[in-house]
Amino acid sequence: MACCGNCFCCQCCCREGETLTPEELTILGEIGDDEDEILPRKDYESLDYDRCISEPYVEIVEGMDNKKAKKYEAVRWLMMFAIGVTVGLVGLFVDFFVRLFSKIKFTVVGDSVEKCSDKGCLPLSLLELLAFNMTFVFIASVLVLIEPVAAGSGIPEIKSYLNGVKIPGIVRLRTFLCKAAGVLFSVAGGLFVGKEGPLIHSGAIVGAGLPQFQSITFKRIKFDFPYFRSDRDKRDFVSAGAAAGVAAAFGAPIGGTLFSLEEGSSFWNQALTWKVLFCSMSATFTLNFFRSGINFNKWGSFQLPGLLNFGEFKCSDGEKSCHLWTAVDLAFFVLMGVVGGLLGALFNCMNTILAKYRIKHIHPKAKFVRVLESLLVAMVTTVVIFAASILLGECRDLSSPTTHNTTLSGGEDINSTIRQFFCTNKTYNDMATLFFNPQEAAIHQLFHQEGTFSPVTLSVFFLLYFLLACWTYGVSVPSGLFVPSLLCGAAFGRLVANILKVKLGMDIYSGTFALIGAAAFLGGVVRMTISLTVILIESTNEITYGLPIMITLMVAKWTGDFFNKGIYDIHIQLRGVPLLEWETEVEMDKLTASDIMEPNLTYVYPHTRVQSLVSILRTTVYNAFPVVTENRQNERDFMKGNILVSNNIRFKNSSVVSRAGEQRRRCQSMKSYPSSELRNVCDEHNVVVEPAEEGEDLLQQMLERRHAPYPNLYPDQSPSEEWTMEERFRPLTFHGLILRSQLVNLLIRGVCYAEHQSSSTQPRLSYAEMTEDYPRYPDIHDLDLALLNPRMIVDVTPYMNPCPYAVSPNTHTSQVFNLFRTMGLRHLPVVNAVGEIVGIITRHNLTHEFLVAKLRQHSITI
Amino acid sequence: MACCGNCFCCQCCCREGETLTPEELTILGEIGDDEDEILPRKDYESLDYDRCISEPYVEIVEGMDNKKAKKYEAVRWLMMFAIGVTVGLVGLFVDFFVRLFSKIKFTVVGDSVEKCSDKGCLPLSLLELLAFNMTFVFIASVLVLIEPVAAGSGIPEIKSYLNGVKIPGIVRLRTFLCKAAGVLFSVAGGLFVGKEGPLIHSGAIVGAGLPQFQSITFKRIKFDFPYFRSDRDKRDFVSAGAAAGVAAAFGAPIGGTLFSLEEGSSFWNQALTWKVLFCSMSATFTLNFFRSGINFNKWGSFQLPGLLNFGEFKCSDGEKSCHLWTAVDLAFFVLMGVVGGLLGALFNCMNTILAKYRIKHIHPKAKFVRVLESLLVAMVTTVVIFAASILLGECRDLSSPTTHNTTLSGGEDINSTIRQFFCTNKTYNDMATLFFNPQEAAIHQLFHQEGTFSPVTLSVFFLLYFLLACWTYGVSVPSGLFVPSLLCGAAFGRLVANILKVKLGMDIYSGTFALIGAAAFLGGVVRMTISLTVILIESTNEITYGLPIMITLMVAKWTGDFFNKGIYDIHIQLRGVPLLEWETEVEMDKLTASDIMEPNLTYVYPHTRVQSLVSILRTTVYNAFPVVTENRQNERDFMKGNILVSNNIRFKNSSVVSRAGEQRRRCQSMKSYPSSELRNVCDEHNVVVEPAEEGEDLLQQMLERRHAPYPNLYPDQSPSEEWTMEERFRPLTFHGLILRSQLVNLLIRGVCYAEHQSSSTQPRLSYAEMTEDYPRYPDIHDLDLALLNPRMIVDVTPYMNPCPYAVSPNTHTSQVFNLFRTMGLRHLPVVNAVGEIVGIITRHNLTHEFLVAKLRQHSITI
Repeated sequence: MACCGNCFCCQCCCREGETLTPEELTILGEIGDDEDEILPRKDYESLDYDRCISEPYVEIVEGMDNKKAKKYEAVRWLMMFAIGVTVGLVGLFVDFFVRLFSKIKFTVVGDSVEKCSDKGCLPLSLLELLAFNMTFVFIASVLVLIEPVAAGSGIPEIKSYLNGVKIPGIVRLRTFLCKAAGVLFSVAGGLFVGKEGPLIHSGAIVGAGLPQFQSITFKRIKFDFPYFRSDRDKRDFVSAGAAAGVAAAFGAPIGGTLFSLEEGSSFWNQALTWKVLFCSMSATFTLNFFRSGINFNKWGSFQLPGLLNFGEFKCSDGEKSCHLWTAVDLAFFVLMGVVGGLLGALFNCMNTILAKYRIKHIHPKAKFVRVLESLLVAMVTTVVIFAASILLGECRDLSSPTTHNTTLSGGEDINSTIRQFFCTNKTYNDMATLFFNPQEAAIHQLFHQEGTFSPVTLSVFFLLYFLLACWTYGVSVPSGLFVPSLLCGAAFGRLVANILKVKLGMDIYSGTFALIGAAAFLGGVVRMTISLTVILIESTNEITYGLPIMITLMVAKWTGDFFNKGIYDIHIQLRGVPLLEWETEVEMDKLTASDIMEPNLTYVYPHTRVQSLVSILRTTVYNAFPVVTENRQNERDFMKGNILVSNNIRFKNSSVVSRAGEQRRRCQSMKSYPSSELRNVCDEHNVVVEPAEEGEDLLQQMLERRHAPYPNLYPDQSPSEEWTMEERFRPLTFHGLILRSQLVNLLIRGVCYAEHQSSSTQPRLSYAEMTEDYPRYPDIHDLDLALLNPRMIVDVTPYMNPCPYAVSPNTHTSQVFNLFRTMGLRHLPVVNAVGEIVGIITRHNLTHEFLVAKLRQHSITI
Repeated sequence: MACCGNCFCCQCCCREGETLTPEELTILGEIGDDEDEILPRKDYESLDYDRCISEPYVEIVEGMDNKKAKKYEAVRWLMMFAIGVTVGLVGLFVDFFVRLFSKIKFTVVGDSVEKCSDKGCLPLSLLELLAFNMTFVFIASVLVLIEPVAAGSGIPEIKSYLNGVKIPGIVRLRTFLCKAAGVLFSVAGGLFVGKEGPLIHSGAIVGAGLPQFQSITFKRIKFDFPYFRSDRDKRDFVSAGAAAGVAAAFGAPIGGTLFSLEEGSSFWNQALTWKVLFCSMSATFTLNFFRSGINFNKWGSFQLPGLLNFGEFKCSDGEKSCHLWTAVDLAFFVLMGVVGGLLGALFNCMNTILAKYRIKHIHPKAKFVRVLESLLVAMVTTVVIFAASILLGECRDLSSPTTHNTTLSGGEDINSTIRQFFCTNKTYNDMATLFFNPQEAAIHQLFHQEGTFSPVTLSVFFLLYFLLACWTYGVSVPSGLFVPSLLCGAAFGRLVANILKVKLGMDIYSGTFALIGAAAFLGGVVRMTISLTVILIESTNEITYGLPIMITLMVAKWTGDFFNKGIYDIHIQLRGVPLLEWETEVEMDKLTASDIMEPNLTYVYPHTRVQSLVSILRTTVYNAFPVVTENRQNERDFMKGNILVSNNIRFKNSSVVSRAGEQRRRCQSMKSYPSSELRNVCDEHNVVVEPAEEGEDLLQQMLERRHAPYPNLYPDQSPSEEWTMEERFRPLTFHGLILRSQLVNLLIRGVCYAEHQSSSTQPRLSYAEMTEDYPRYPDIHDLDLALLNPRMIVDVTPYMNPCPYAVSPNTHTSQVFNLFRTMGLRHLPVVNAVGEIVGIITRHNLTHEFLVAKLRQHSITI
């Protein structure tokens, strides 16, 4: 089946359709007609991780001294500590209630089964279990109905957020409540889901929310550097929160720090990383403190670092020749990595098909259908584990001589989690031991219980778990993937160990193989690298496992990448999030900034009438507008000068790109440009008078227009479809960039001056006033126009970013991409050699899909 | 004494003289007259970590497909593995011989002492020990004479290299040989030095060298993407090598990876980090494999991860109430952190004074004086440990009931390293146990031997070790600091534990306190953060120590930073390396790019005569030249246009910075500009005709000059001191940046064309030819002029970087700094709104000292 699935998989999940024709490329930017190809959507807003250094910000800097900077730094550390402690407490809360509910459930049902195996009332036990599970899952599902973003693991969403894409509602308090409570019930409800992913998401929300709340308090005590009220600083706290989530979930503070670096950060900031590590440590510490206190009643000792840990791998004291692993085992680990990668790819492929089916057939229907699906999954899961335990479990000898005691994370003895289930005294049911326990206990069983699982049980368990976990991930309940994948992989690894040890008689340590199996499968599914290695090493608390785990993960990733992407990336793609990769491929350097930029600009002037601004804001959806002045004369002269130069010393013609020239080039070479609006432009105004050829009348007209105080101030003269090509692509000298939120803010606060006044009479906003409404700036459509005199004039120059990073049109894609990605930009103006803006590059112009399409176009043109 | 030293320290090592007057600032860039202030020197070359996308590079990209890219990627992984294995083997080699020599030495001397304590021939034993130690140290010192860069730990040098500063000879094969052999002898010679730092340096050299060697081989088999022949790629391999060095030294692959990130990388590159981790793992693996095989004769098992490990911290099985640490202990850890920070600051301060003394009085003298100093240190050390062991050691009971067995890294029992030394049977000399053992064994004693060291012994040991280690670091032998600091700190921690346990009767675990003491002192000396935390956690192999270690390190760093910098940073500063910090301070945002740039430019034209190029190259030391065309007319028009605009809508005056205007502003506001040459310019040409005011004659002249095919082609017309202000600061349109090495390469390969020919007849160089001589490009002074026709013309446009990252003059310092630091730039052109280059920013314009000076100037001007 695996083989067949793989073949199928190759067809359905190949990373992109390599056969798109240029015509098909025109749909780029919308959801493809082809149902298998989901392209990045354009309606996601980006986050702005670059600092906007406008005049109000400079004012703050002017008033800054060392003392203030230190005070602020101290607040930052305090915040990190607060986030860590809070995340630790959230983990504690979730863990406590999951344990409580699971214990109640398993005790009641276990008693019933024991009673009923004599009396023959097994259906009653099943009904009891069903009642428990379906009630819990129902609650989880209803919570997700309240806040649909709370579904799933949350890692794709956090990854998107840290990458710079805003997914609405992802860091809201309501999402946090639904997620934390929901995951508790979905885990307690016996679904094959983990609590790790949701805990990471919860941590991220804590990180996003806590400093915001606090900064209001601080403003009251005149903490006048409102530093936390920007996407940039919020991102730092979200990183820290996510790291703390990992730290709490796995007891892996270093792994958590690396997780937030791997998934999120684009540049390495030593100071931030140090704070993130501190935050993670605080979370582990808090959790450890309280759990050690509650479970062992030893307050002040620290013995339970994370919610999930793998117990201690060690040889029993007696055996001197025992090794955890040897060089020979490495060969098997590599093979297991390959198999894990294949299994992971299959898992992802099946889950992708399911997810697409859900998007098409379930999501459009009424919301209660989703609840029904959750209940169906819960019911099937319950029945399957019940039936499997009864029908397929084997009774095995309890007093096996090789069994040694290992302490579970809860402080319980490993043998206390063994289930008898119809078996006579001194034997127990191996299938029930795996199914009728919390997943963590089952993992411990597979890692540390020696010689107690039959190959048949392991195979059946693996298969059932694989299929059900695959079905479950994507159901609308909060659901992590780590623990199910680990459990599934551990069964696989244990199976391999069983075969090697019993059938081939090799001297190996089963626990290591179970661990490597778990790593291989998890690696095959999620395809994480550095952070996963470190998380697993920290969870095992055994540094010597570093190399085998790393090799296994690497092989699993390579194998899996041959077929499809990691599960998180797949779900990001299914959502149409325009994620930016780490680097562009080398061949993308065939393209330059002018090839990939958006040349169709909507801009504002340094001084614009209110009327005009409102019109621009209401008729466009852009989030930033270049501030420009028109400067035709200059360009003409420069071109003349350039021609002179080129006559003499053969200067490269392409070195000065003008917007008009660029646009003509595009119109000629490509009729099927993605943006439909632009296509119209090309068709209608294909024959355009060149600037150098036009008559003196037009020039005179232009010059006069320049002399008029506010050229193109009225809505019907602002950039619109009615403009001629000439008007649309007149040369614009670039002066800065202003954000939509800033413009709306200026309008709402009435920052403008009357025509007959000097612009110095315009009221000044402070940095605090500019960022007061962060992160939810008012919408332009909520603006009450009656309050504004449309003929007043707004001077935007003090509020714009006067010198954003910019690139020249000839810059190669890799440079553009590095700058954009590393600096966390949202808009990157493309400015030519004479200071005219010729285009703008946003996230959408840099997605892999867009670049591939452009590259194909490029090679066709050549 | 500590208090007195600290006060002294405040005066002598404060980070900068806060009282410099503007006049004093003029010396910036040279070594200060004030002996305590060493400013960044200008004669260090920077490394170029940005990719130069010139035409030959684009050609390579055009020929690139996926298959080639994959092949290249595979080679890269292979390289990483090769580096890891090699570094592991180097570690093995050093370790093996250190052990061998130490064993011989201690056996011979130990036997002699035992014999002599009866016979009374102790001076003979001392002489034997002296002979051994001084011979070893002499060899080490002579090796350093051969290659002076091999002295010291090498970490400051590697840190500088990764930061982007080339220190000559730092990654040469000869340095490697001297360092690896030298450290072996200096450690075996009984000096208080560690082998960890030199091992990291050796690893870095392996990383730099191995792929270079290989790429020659690959070129033979037509591997035509010579990707490894650039600073950028070399840096990646050096990072990996340094990480592998840490991994081998401490058995800490994750710590090693983080080390290379913390010290070097400016941006987080997931793919690279993953490779670096792999390289580190390979090193640990290799070392582990061979050491386990050699020491235990168990080939294939992996039990000895690193050269240094701290043994296993665990409670003896009997005690149930034993904790490694509790919440209460944390308070003591914080206090120990403070003390560790103070001690570290004192250590650094004393070492700084010594280092300055050495620079002034020892380095200028004949080289053999350095050897004499090494021998003196060796002699004093030997005599001191001998005398201390005999006079101050206490005989303590061997059969102490609390002693438990712990396995040392070498597989020996901990009690095997105990020294009797005159003590009667069943007792042993505690001082001799610490001094007459390899340092690793002494650390193990302090960490794991229970209740066996008297407070007096510990105090004396700490004091002697502190003073001698401080003296030793900086002597011209290869010498690490990690192990001496750990040992010193462990003694301090053990002392605290002794007092708390014996005097106050607290129930604590001594080993933990020794560990925390070691961390506190080491943290106070080196001030590393993330990587040190992880290295220590990995060395203890105990994740639960994470929080206490981290808190201790944090407190130690904060305390120490109050007084001075970390020892590595101090030595970097003493060398005058222009290191760039992680971020600028917030108040630096008061400055903009135009405030900090160098406005005095030497430039080339797109087509220049050979004669002129040679002259420029020979008369300047700049490493990059902007490629410009003169474009006076354009600027005049633009200014006119801009005035028009500003009449109407009050545009910011400062938005267009021209070089001439900028220069005038500077001349007026500041007579004491650092560069003496520029000061002359200001003085001589203070009254300058403004471009807007000058007569038509000059303009006509200019225009004619523009029409002439090669304006300013002859040496006497290229930028020189004789130029008028007007000539010097004429507007220059910026077209690209070309490196000195590229120009020299073009000249040497005769890339030029004759005056009457078209530039297309100029021969073309491929990327491979351009980079063939990397990293040692020929010098212009080696060029034989007779071979070149001085009237030939070179077209530099295909070889220049046509679109380097550039900033506008109004960009704030933090943005400039981030761009420069993150992208690893070497030259950052400052280009104004009309595309004219107005200045250039290099590393020297962004050093902390330069920015502070500029800021002070700035506030005076205002």
